[in-house]
Amino acid sequence: MSTSTANYHHGNLRDALLSAGLAALEGPDGQAPSLRELARRTGVSATAVYRHFPDKQALDKALAREGLKRLGSEQAEAAKRAGGGAEGFAETGRTYVRFALAHPALFRLMFTQGSPVDDTGTPDEARALLTANTQALASDPERAETLALQAWSIAHGIAMLMLDGRIPADDALIDRMLATDSLFP
Amino acid sequence: MSTSTANYHHGNLRDALLSAGLAALEGPDGQAPSLRELARRTGVSATAVYRHFPDKQALDKALAREGLKRLGSEQAEAAKRAGGGAEGFAETGRTYVRFALAHPALFRLMFTQGSPVDDTGTPDEARALLTANTQALASDPERAETLALQAWSIAHGIAMLMLDGRIPADDALIDRMLATDSLFP
Repeated sequence: MSTSTANYHHGNLRDALLSAGLAALEGPDGQAPSLRELARRTGVSATAVYRHFPDKQALDKALAREGLKRLGSEQAEAAKRAGGGAEGFAETGRTYVRFALAHPALFRLMFTQGSPVDDTGTPDEARALLTANTQALASDPERAETLALQAWSIAHGIAMLMLDGRIPADDALIDRMLATDSLFP
Repeated sequence: MSTSTANYHHGNLRDALLSAGLAALEGPDGQAPSLRELARRTGVSATAVYRHFPDKQALDKALAREGLKRLGSEQAEAAKRAGGGAEGFAETGRTYVRFALAHPALFRLMFTQGSPVDDTGTPDEARALLTANTQALASDPERAETLALQAWSIAHGIAMLMLDGRIPADDALIDRMLATDSLFP
């Protein structure tokens, strides 16, 4: 082991690499760094980085998964604060759009680039939350699944149209477009 | 005027350049060609191309506007075939998603790249249709505007999630997600 990697335990280095990757995504060029650049930023050898992420795709996938985990937590907290139910469900949509506007590069990595990190592009936590909420709102399982996809689509559409400058990125407009009484009979 | 441009009247050449640009977008690499490449494909001098499109951005904008015109026509026809009303409005959404899946590169040029070709990213024709339909469905003007943006967002979200492989690009799923009785109260 080289001296530069001696400061990290195996798990610690992975976390440090992910943190550096996420920080780079929040930076002015909004790009995940190359593995070599990530090594430089973290002060370890490229070999140490390759041990955790054999290629750029593996890093991007891990960053996307980390983003999905964070989004899932924010959605769960927002739904809980709103007291669950239809209003809690609407809050998960608003949180999705606000997350996209706050972390545009990470959001694009999660939902528009490469292959989905799992079948649906949502992590287990977020998917469980989505399903629990739609099952509470629609007793028929097919209706619950359709509602989940419709809700994801409208939040994703608002997020993309705002990120791409097609409609104004405006907080009041997000609330109005995702008002519980104007969607889903 | 060089011999190579003598075969075109001014308007004809512009149409020929747009057709060649649209054909390139439908090609395997899904890219609008450079102006020099466009000249080569159309068999005219680069100078003749620059007369119509001073830079790549001008060409992209004209291609996007042409795409929006075509989408608008397809939506108007679909709404008319469905007999207008709520079902006609739903058909404009389904047409939007199917257009995205049929012309992915053109669709991305229209709605995700560069700056919008006008304030809303929709051409006059499509916007007039959208407004007419939502005004017919909601008498309150603010509700009509919200409904228009919600409808655009859900169609755009479905299109992007299908194009980016996050949900299956499936015709029956498009119908189910845009069923008139499951979206707007």
